[in-house]
Amino acid sequence: MAVRYELIKTCAQTGARLGRLHTPHGVIDTPTFMPVGTQATVKGISPEELKDLNAQIILSNTYHLFVRPGHELIRAAGGLHKFMNWDRPILTDSGGFQVFSLAENRKITEEGVTFRSHLNGDKLYLSPEVATAVQNALGSDIMMAFDECPPFPAEYDYVKKSTERTSRWAERCLKAHARPHDQALFGIVQGGMHADLRRQSVMDLTSLDFPGYSIGGLSVGEPKHLMYQVLEETVPLMPGNKPRYLMGVGSPDALVEGSIRGIDMFDCVLPTRIARNGTVMTSQGRLVVRHAKYADDFAPLDPECSCYACRSYSRAYIRHLIKADEMFGLRLTTIHNLHFLVELMRQVREAIREDRLRDFRDEFFEKYGMQNNESGF
Amino acid sequence: MAVRYELIKTCAQTGARLGRLHTPHGVIDTPTFMPVGTQATVKGISPEELKDLNAQIILSNTYHLFVRPGHELIRAAGGLHKFMNWDRPILTDSGGFQVFSLAENRKITEEGVTFRSHLNGDKLYLSPEVATAVQNALGSDIMMAFDECPPFPAEYDYVKKSTERTSRWAERCLKAHARPHDQALFGIVQGGMHADLRRQSVMDLTSLDFPGYSIGGLSVGEPKHLMYQVLEETVPLMPGNKPRYLMGVGSPDALVEGSIRGIDMFDCVLPTRIARNGTVMTSQGRLVVRHAKYADDFAPLDPECSCYACRSYSRAYIRHLIKADEMFGLRLTTIHNLHFLVELMRQVREAIREDRLRDFRDEFFEKYGMQNNESGF
Repeated sequence: MAVRYELIKTCAQTGARLGRLHTPHGVIDTPTFMPVGTQATVKGISPEELKDLNAQIILSNTYHLFVRPGHELIRAAGGLHKFMNWDRPILTDSGGFQVFSLAENRKITEEGVTFRSHLNGDKLYLSPEVATAVQNALGSDIMMAFDECPPFPAEYDYVKKSTERTSRWAERCLKAHARPHDQALFGIVQGGMHADLRRQSVMDLTSLDFPGYSIGGLSVGEPKHLMYQVLEETVPLMPGNKPRYLMGVGSPDALVEGSIRGIDMFDCVLPTRIARNGTVMTSQGRLVVRHAKYADDFAPLDPECSCYACRSYSRAYIRHLIKADEMFGLRLTTIHNLHFLVELMRQVREAIREDRLRDFRDEFFEKYGMQNNESGF
Repeated sequence: MAVRYELIKTCAQTGARLGRLHTPHGVIDTPTFMPVGTQATVKGISPEELKDLNAQIILSNTYHLFVRPGHELIRAAGGLHKFMNWDRPILTDSGGFQVFSLAENRKITEEGVTFRSHLNGDKLYLSPEVATAVQNALGSDIMMAFDECPPFPAEYDYVKKSTERTSRWAERCLKAHARPHDQALFGIVQGGMHADLRRQSVMDLTSLDFPGYSIGGLSVGEPKHLMYQVLEETVPLMPGNKPRYLMGVGSPDALVEGSIRGIDMFDCVLPTRIARNGTVMTSQGRLVVRHAKYADDFAPLDPECSCYACRSYSRAYIRHLIKADEMFGLRLTTIHNLHFLVELMRQVREAIREDRLRDFRDEFFEKYGMQNNESGF
């Protein structure tokens, strides 16, 4: 078994789980947040900086690497870990989400999806078999089954057919998987916002006995309370001895709320993307360091933070760098935001260990200055 | 005295000097190359990375910092060292060169220069007194006198008048200098390609007894043999107990040839600028890592190099990052090029110590594969 989930304890105040995920490239403490390294690099920062901020696992994108530089090149380099000089665990998604959000002229059949590259218009094809072979070439510790991610809102009938196809595709991925002893293949639960379809999806996938399960099709534009409702309806149906991964979610409030509802793994481009726009997460809430009011503010981004950026640089300096289009500014905001979420998850784990995650949530949200129960992301 | 030059020895094969420059923020081994941090950051890399590649001093640009974020802001931050988190020596230029190369609508009078900001068109004014006050606010270890840099080619009469004015401006800078015990002010020798004007400029400036002298107005489009000729005519006139700084020169061949002719300090944006275009300097010559032939080349940028980029990343990976517009690729090429020049200067110093700099030059140029006695930069 390439991946083993170890449940340490469940929080007495919530449904949150403290655990460890054992993988070929090391152990991950859960619940965890995974920084996204779309193109074999977490935009703006080095592997050493990721380690310095205590990232235990990163995510990379199959679609992007398939399009450029190509999985055969990465196989020839000795796999994705070696290519990008990252020796800790890597999770790769399946490309399903990007085919539906990024690619052009896509055509879906039962067999797979033809589409045009978003880079140069080349005609390309992904299917359960191809997406699995690509991830086998990349050599990620955790692979995802190729799925279809329905938009929000979507008609019930469309979601039903799509979810059923995702289940059939999941079975084909399992069959195509060439390295089950080195790499763990997770199934993706779909079903949109419909409790019965989510239930059916969980039943379909658990009958195939994946080593882990993710929840896809959330954080696609629906209100957060609806996402939490789907989690409350879906997570309890999922096996307790396997890791549960909520895809594409990374706002501070949703990480805490997702953990409370039993999620073990999260990923999102949010912290890195907003960092490149000059926006940072702090213990006091959102801070847009680009704003003129920080021009002569010599405090760190977050006075309570211990990250590299906050130890050595002021808001005034970082604002100057960003206004002057200097790369180093984006490196500093990126390091800060990733550190913020990784540190938040450490605090969540500590709160679970001490059976006080509900209290932690209330204190965190109050300090953060939540507006209408949302963090502003 | 803010800066003291210590001559260790002169090369028996050439006119090169091995020395040490003592400054308030530490000692610099000379001859030295100074990476350029135009906007209070060396584009793409951190202070820690600069130290890791053994940079002992950096240069920052008075014009750029004057325009944005403003020297008063940097003074309020505690000076440029603190603002940018760099605790080693900093040299600031005077803004003279940029006023003549970057600014718009400039109008020169004996008093100073009015011009429009290249950023927003604001009307601005620099003079010997203002440029000195700005550098006093920045708190650099070494400041430069405000000069006029004539273009190449230029009429003799124009260069003569301009050089004489630069000498008068140099005297005004000395008088305006508010922190002579913390900061050393260097004079700038001008005179274009004319031996008699260079001689006059050296005489004017040495009569003012600056703690160091630079040679300006070279590397402005003239052929290299002409630059070397000017050095041969000018350097011997300069005082032997003061450091000699050749401004704006940074190609590998010119660093070696300049050292041979008695230069102690160099700076240039070349290594960092070409790095951002995917071009690197290697012991075998110029390498454009963007080129398709490196797509599946898993060797380091330079197999003989020990820099961070060469220790952990392949040409194929770096090419992928650059093609994919990933910042980390530019960081790696920047680190490599700066390391290459800093290491080259270490080898130059070693060769001076062993009285074999002419032999070193011949071996280096042969290995580098010089074309028509030029390095391709």
